[in-house]
Amino acid sequence: MELGMVGLGRMGANMAQRLVTGGHQVTGFDPNANARKAVEAKGVASAESLPALVTALPTPRVVWLMVPSGKITDDTVNALLPLLAKGDTVIDGGNSNYKDSVRRAKLYADNGLGYVDCGTSGGVWGLKEGYSMMVGGDEKTVAVLKPIFETLAPGKDQGWGRVGLVGSGHFTKMIHNGIEYGLMQAYAEGFSILQHKQEFALDLQQVAEIWRYGSVVRSWLLDLTADALKKNPTMQGIAPYVVDSGEGRWTVAEAIDLDVPAPIITASLIERLRSRDGESFTDKLLSAMRNEFGGHAIKKE
Amino acid sequence: MELGMVGLGRMGANMAQRLVTGGHQVTGFDPNANARKAVEAKGVASAESLPALVTALPTPRVVWLMVPSGKITDDTVNALLPLLAKGDTVIDGGNSNYKDSVRRAKLYADNGLGYVDCGTSGGVWGLKEGYSMMVGGDEKTVAVLKPIFETLAPGKDQGWGRVGLVGSGHFTKMIHNGIEYGLMQAYAEGFSILQHKQEFALDLQQVAEIWRYGSVVRSWLLDLTADALKKNPTMQGIAPYVVDSGEGRWTVAEAIDLDVPAPIITASLIERLRSRDGESFTDKLLSAMRNEFGGHAIKKE
Repeated sequence: MELGMVGLGRMGANMAQRLVTGGHQVTGFDPNANARKAVEAKGVASAESLPALVTALPTPRVVWLMVPSGKITDDTVNALLPLLAKGDTVIDGGNSNYKDSVRRAKLYADNGLGYVDCGTSGGVWGLKEGYSMMVGGDEKTVAVLKPIFETLAPGKDQGWGRVGLVGSGHFTKMIHNGIEYGLMQAYAEGFSILQHKQEFALDLQQVAEIWRYGSVVRSWLLDLTADALKKNPTMQGIAPYVVDSGEGRWTVAEAIDLDVPAPIITASLIERLRSRDGESFTDKLLSAMRNEFGGHAIKKE
Repeated sequence: MELGMVGLGRMGANMAQRLVTGGHQVTGFDPNANARKAVEAKGVASAESLPALVTALPTPRVVWLMVPSGKITDDTVNALLPLLAKGDTVIDGGNSNYKDSVRRAKLYADNGLGYVDCGTSGGVWGLKEGYSMMVGGDEKTVAVLKPIFETLAPGKDQGWGRVGLVGSGHFTKMIHNGIEYGLMQAYAEGFSILQHKQEFALDLQQVAEIWRYGSVVRSWLLDLTADALKKNPTMQGIAPYVVDSGEGRWTVAEAIDLDVPAPIITASLIERLRSRDGESFTDKLLSAMRNEFGGHAIKKE
């Protein structure tokens, strides 16, 4: 198929490349000229503006968005709206909040335009191994886009599927990321206990390698953990500071909205917040309280 | 090699079978005559008592224990002690507490006997796919046993290793299981949120299948989850009651001993306790308190 790719960062550039390798024609746009040049070297055509991108595409047009969620996605969706014509379709492959996707899809539908939300997992490994994609949209629109998903996925009928109407793709991806938080936290806590058991002087990388084969905890995240431990067994130079990009907190809010207890996904998010709370007011106040009632010594800064 | 296998339950019987298939000679013992008969059909010799098992083995003897942890392991270890001779070795492949393994190894060493602790993962799939094994013991003793581990493992040099001195094998396996609790809980919570989002009417089995390929959360546990959801999408007939077999609570106790915060592994254990607390006194008291201070209605039984 022929399609446009808006956003040529790590994800968008790799996806454009995988599509071209798979026989599709892709025209990419990114405000960054270097990003455009980089994909041109991989056989991806490029356009210098959104209007130029839209003009370059045959109708009915298909435009894949791979841009940061929130304002940038909104700006892009709004900028594309007047440029597109009835029958064109936009696919948001980014990490948008599913409620935003439902809202944008309605705006597009009101203008005769198709809108599909695709939760995309796979990170930087997707270029080689394929992306896992959870697709939301009406059946007819998704059916037309099938060749794109088949190429981006790890296998033609593997790792992707239409999970429901618009919004369900990003909803499913949001939960995927919530689970991811929990999985990561479980491994990290376990390895930390192993690391602290000094009397056994365990080789963490060896343990990870052992677990990769035949154990109940084997997984792709464990493969990556083994790799990280091999490169840097003591985690030297890495600050104990964990960023989150929003999907965890959306998952927790959704769980609460639905009255579903999700204690460990919630705690995994909280642990990330805590990792960034080096000047914890809570901890200072706890120390002060202990001093108040028991005269326990306060550790000074 | 030639070795004895004590305990012919699901794990022991499968391991004996995998060893025989791999060219070893195995004599099994289990107090249950049916269990003995079952392995005989798979080419495993059997003995009707521990003394008979020991007599049947060539010296220096190697005896693998695959029996429930705690009292049964202690009883078996103590019963074997006077039957064995200097140079013989016992391998505890069960889920013993590592502190018990250190204690038993000392008793054996004091009597000139070898003792190796092997944390074994893989469950009922190990027969086919091989077992992941974390081995603790002195280098010389483990080196002699190498052909056994190479056969039980998924690959000759894959999925097993000597991680340190006696105790380190079961310690590592204990942490493996703690991680397992967290991973399981993360998936279960995520699928529960998906299941509760009725407006999207998601097909949980389809979502699990999509995630199995190319996603960040792909894992062996997810493969099993997909299988469980395929067999029984609504979890019909399954009580919301989750048992634990001890390694989670040992992990949590160890984390606290070592001053390592392990909140999600801890919470995963607590969730299992909670699943069995259908008559929660805590919840009743909370409901009563709300009534006391705010006159909020109490839901009656």
